[in-house]
Amino acid sequence: MSLQFQIHSTAGSARRATLALPHGAVETPVFMPVGTQATVKAIPQHLLEELDVRILLGNTYHLYLRPGHETIRRLGGLHRFMSWGRPILTDSGGFQVFSLSDLRKVTDDGVAFRSHIDGSSHFFSPEHSMDVQIALGSDIAMAFDECTEYPADRSRARASLDRTLAWAQRSRDHFEAHKHGAPWAQRAAPSVQRSENGADASSDPLQGKIPSLFGIVQGGMFADLRRESAERLVEMDFPGYAIGGLSVGEPRELTREMIAATLPLLPAGKPRYVMGVGYPDEIAEYARMGVDMMDCVLPTRAARHGLLFTSEGRLNIKNRQYAEDHNPPDPACNCLVCRRYTRAYLRHLMQAQEPLSAVLNTLHNLAFYLETMRKVRNDVAANGKPQQPHLADAPMKR
Amino acid sequence: MSLQFQIHSTAGSARRATLALPHGAVETPVFMPVGTQATVKAIPQHLLEELDVRILLGNTYHLYLRPGHETIRRLGGLHRFMSWGRPILTDSGGFQVFSLSDLRKVTDDGVAFRSHIDGSSHFFSPEHSMDVQIALGSDIAMAFDECTEYPADRSRARASLDRTLAWAQRSRDHFEAHKHGAPWAQRAAPSVQRSENGADASSDPLQGKIPSLFGIVQGGMFADLRRESAERLVEMDFPGYAIGGLSVGEPRELTREMIAATLPLLPAGKPRYVMGVGYPDEIAEYARMGVDMMDCVLPTRAARHGLLFTSEGRLNIKNRQYAEDHNPPDPACNCLVCRRYTRAYLRHLMQAQEPLSAVLNTLHNLAFYLETMRKVRNDVAANGKPQQPHLADAPMKR
Repeated sequence: MSLQFQIHSTAGSARRATLALPHGAVETPVFMPVGTQATVKAIPQHLLEELDVRILLGNTYHLYLRPGHETIRRLGGLHRFMSWGRPILTDSGGFQVFSLSDLRKVTDDGVAFRSHIDGSSHFFSPEHSMDVQIALGSDIAMAFDECTEYPADRSRARASLDRTLAWAQRSRDHFEAHKHGAPWAQRAAPSVQRSENGADASSDPLQGKIPSLFGIVQGGMFADLRRESAERLVEMDFPGYAIGGLSVGEPRELTREMIAATLPLLPAGKPRYVMGVGYPDEIAEYARMGVDMMDCVLPTRAARHGLLFTSEGRLNIKNRQYAEDHNPPDPACNCLVCRRYTRAYLRHLMQAQEPLSAVLNTLHNLAFYLETMRKVRNDVAANGKPQQPHLADAPMKR
Repeated sequence: MSLQFQIHSTAGSARRATLALPHGAVETPVFMPVGTQATVKAIPQHLLEELDVRILLGNTYHLYLRPGHETIRRLGGLHRFMSWGRPILTDSGGFQVFSLSDLRKVTDDGVAFRSHIDGSSHFFSPEHSMDVQIALGSDIAMAFDECTEYPADRSRARASLDRTLAWAQRSRDHFEAHKHGAPWAQRAAPSVQRSENGADASSDPLQGKIPSLFGIVQGGMFADLRRESAERLVEMDFPGYAIGGLSVGEPRELTREMIAATLPLLPAGKPRYVMGVGYPDEIAEYARMGVDMMDCVLPTRAARHGLLFTSEGRLNIKNRQYAEDHNPPDPACNCLVCRRYTRAYLRHLMQAQEPLSAVLNTLHNLAFYLETMRKVRNDVAANGKPQQPHLADAPMKR
């Protein structure tokens, strides 16, 4: 079993569902906090659990470079390495290779690049991206894609789309051949599931489970190319689909338009993931349009710069006006930061460059994002039509 | 009531006692984590509570400069400002004025200096230090002293000692005249303790409580000057006494010698505090010699540099040898870090310069220090002679 996606109710295009993954269940629509380097910056894992984070995103490019995917494999995989027992989705490394590395050279075979850390030379192909993600042991791996830059003209967007589709097929072929090599899938395999006294450890919750691979729709800002990308990708039959190449500098209306043009072309019974979005009102809007999964560095990165998201809008906690403000960051929020600390204190921590500033600001922003999704889920459950309970099991073809 | 110090049992010179302060009870011997800028660096307050931290140290110099003691007073005092309901001890600011500020000029009246933050000009006198500490609302304030540098010759140590004693008297006089001005003491005063419906709010736990002032023994590394300093200070009758001017660069044996020479001269029924020490074996040793309170930046500062204290000695988590070490930092430790994370993971966080590194390293080191003191307390309780229960109430003279 790779994943199960059970839709409980729908309201318009929005769906309230449960995504069952090897490491646990995720209630969707879901926002996935980003844990780039095997950590959601500044937050201990037990506090992520207390926030009810159900799934994290890890960055393949960063983990490949440091500490290295083979190191993580030898330490039992990313879940064990970072002590996170719930699901993990990894990106393909493609986006960071294009945005962070130096001297990259792209061919149909893959991407040669130099590390942003030490300048060392590396090469990523679809096959290598799969090997790295399997070594990390993510619950959901992503096909290696070329994230089309913005702006890109039609011929550039088409070439990038063609390359991404060819890479999707290679990603899929390699992933299918090697996915049982995920560290936890190996541990849970029957051959190593006999304890010393010979008892069958068939109760291992990972028994019989395998990771899944999602395909990624590209096509720049051209609705017809998005359509073509989606249709050809769906023919390959992935257990879930992402819409990539958005939130790369284009106007917000264009992001929305591309999502709206693409969503109806993706199978209704499978999870749909929009990568790299967005502001709180955006993720709520996209969820209502039928997006099931989203991730973004915004809540965590903005927090470290003192930008807090609240029910009253954005709040720059560095501002002098908060120096003696005894109110919580968001009076309508019930997170552990808002229950306990004042704006004046958070401003002081920022002014004094105290590390606790990043911890508390991030905790609040994550709580706000998670609550935003919780409200959408509750709305869909309360106002939507119940679905006949059925399991839209989506195994990949062999 | 300022403080009560109840000794439960003694073993040799060591004492197991309870120090009752306005904001709660502290079991001694105790190690006090340092929260310089109204935060123990990187640690949320609820995790300090979970560690069973009972008392924190705040730095008067830093809080005076940023955010300013009047700001903190207007926000209800340091406890409210940082959301810490348990006791706080503040230093006098003297040590930081001498060690951190620029262009300082010392006269018998006080110290003129420039801020290390922005170069602005300031003046600290004993009276001003008391005003600042009362505005912060600490449970225990410290007399303004001149921390004698090391090395210092006899005449320099004597001059510094004489100045410190003169300042102790001025500190005491000013503190006695103004101590009821602590923000929480004002809130708890009967005149403002009537709620809107006229009910008497006499159940306020701070009702009738006031802060305390400790005197500080100086005298450099001269046992006879330490004796003179202690004797003249005891004549002033403080509710507790600190031994200052140690751990300033002198050999460890000399630190121990000065503590040993001074402790017998301090009243047995009152708390004794050695400032700015030390390594885990040192704080255990000093506690067994009869020291009741200690503070040091070592566990928190070392943590941020990757130095972990363990039952097996010091461990520099940056070392390559830990890159694939799946053991916890200290196999004998039961803290939330050692229960959950490996050395390999903590090394990775350090290498990747992740903010979670400071959080987890600090949590472990604090847990180790607190456990070190807990063991000493348990030893004294298990092997010592019980004291007749009596309250060594130590009000200051009026």
